[in-house]
Amino acid sequence: MVYLNGNFIPKDKAYIPVMDRGFLFGDGIYEVFPVYDNTVIGLEPHLNRLQDGLDAINIENPHSKDEWINLINKVVTLNNKNSSQAIYLQISRGCDENRKHTYGKLKPTIYIQSSGIEPKDKRDLIKGKSAITREDIRWLKSNTKATSLLANTLYAQEAKDNDSEEAILYRDGIVTEASSSNVFIVKDNCLYTHPKGPNILPGVTRKIAIQCAENLGIMVKEEKFTKEELMQADEVWISSSTREILPITSIDGMSISDGYAGPVWSLVYDQYQKLKS
Amino acid sequence: MVYLNGNFIPKDKAYIPVMDRGFLFGDGIYEVFPVYDNTVIGLEPHLNRLQDGLDAINIENPHSKDEWINLINKVVTLNNKNSSQAIYLQISRGCDENRKHTYGKLKPTIYIQSSGIEPKDKRDLIKGKSAITREDIRWLKSNTKATSLLANTLYAQEAKDNDSEEAILYRDGIVTEASSSNVFIVKDNCLYTHPKGPNILPGVTRKIAIQCAENLGIMVKEEKFTKEELMQADEVWISSSTREILPITSIDGMSISDGYAGPVWSLVYDQYQKLKS
Repeated sequence: MVYLNGNFIPKDKAYIPVMDRGFLFGDGIYEVFPVYDNTVIGLEPHLNRLQDGLDAINIENPHSKDEWINLINKVVTLNNKNSSQAIYLQISRGCDENRKHTYGKLKPTIYIQSSGIEPKDKRDLIKGKSAITREDIRWLKSNTKATSLLANTLYAQEAKDNDSEEAILYRDGIVTEASSSNVFIVKDNCLYTHPKGPNILPGVTRKIAIQCAENLGIMVKEEKFTKEELMQADEVWISSSTREILPITSIDGMSISDGYAGPVWSLVYDQYQKLKS
Repeated sequence: MVYLNGNFIPKDKAYIPVMDRGFLFGDGIYEVFPVYDNTVIGLEPHLNRLQDGLDAINIENPHSKDEWINLINKVVTLNNKNSSQAIYLQISRGCDENRKHTYGKLKPTIYIQSSGIEPKDKRDLIKGKSAITREDIRWLKSNTKATSLLANTLYAQEAKDNDSEEAILYRDGIVTEASSSNVFIVKDNCLYTHPKGPNILPGVTRKIAIQCAENLGIMVKEEKFTKEELMQADEVWISSSTREILPITSIDGMSISDGYAGPVWSLVYDQYQKLKS
């Protein structure tokens, strides 16, 4: 069951008019909330980022935080066959009578669905995942979680075509983020990740990973690093709401360090897992 | 009446599943064909660009050129209450069962609609339109006519909010194009427009305008020009399929030259009008 504009309906009955600006223009915002045993991880920062996204593209938030929480919980309950759920929430600007780039005041389209999150086994993660690197040619408001995602999907597909988990992006030689995750490196026991700004999504899992590391007494620097520093790192990780914190042990066919997940990842991963229980 | 996936139906009955990647990811390509008295202007180059767009994002073209022409003509005929029509054609990658950035082989969604083109009177155009300028922060594949258009719509809305026709974009000081049109300047009787490449859409009307100018013996240079050269130009125009060739006589509140449409525009505009009859 999904939620669409006020109704809880089967997913295969959820249709929107072709005139929806989400379809015509990619004109919308989305969030993905990870849910474990009916508890949303990072509910508050996800709802804050939703608000930031709506503000960035001038859509009035159609609901209060409490209303959103009620809707999300309702979708979670209707889908509780999945003990681990990814709740996807999309708001598009809505439908106009005619297709035109400019817009008046429209009624936003709201869609919420649940899908299962595949359970992860730390023993399988130790060997890590592979990634490719690509030049970051996306727009310069990548901090907005918008549904105009064509570039991101093309990168993801290139990664898949190369039997890789992700495409790690760099702009002017600086690693920004990956196609749908943030990127971390560990060097000499210090954790680095690109500072917040227009070039990266301020990931909620990124934020939680930083907190986990700091709680463990690990030095964290939100500083830029180059593609060369990525390749020479002791550890490379990616983070996202559904992937959590994943070690990347091979990039563009080259091993990172000894080719296995590292000890700093292991500590932070365990710390993150504690949030679920 | 519109066309959607094999059926000609009323526009208000045209619905797509929420799982359409056009809605979820802005994952599609589009074209706008101007039609005057049942004749499409630039049919062949529009269909070629459609193919280029599909190739750029790896969607297999679901129809031959002849099939497209038949579909377009059918929509034109069904809407011939409009003597001047803009035929909008969108192809999205289609629907997957689950939302994921990567894609397998899907059946593309095809949508075609007609809307009226407002008739223009040259006497009204003489005083020209106003524009604003904005930094071009779009992705670096702006030559692909994709439906991930959020940036373009935000620029268009900013122009509208400033009582302007268009937002003219510049990147690193160089004028690229406008939010949904190409940009031309005239200086010392020579016509300049940004060369084709990843930063601009290869506009069909741009191409036709260049041909019209060359047929008139006007010197045309597909060369970059700066924002300062834009402001100091003798004439500024924009071109698009539905706007045709429009003089811009005021930018960011400053008059261009004497504030009226110029003689080179007038000649090229007349030449373009001849294509309609």
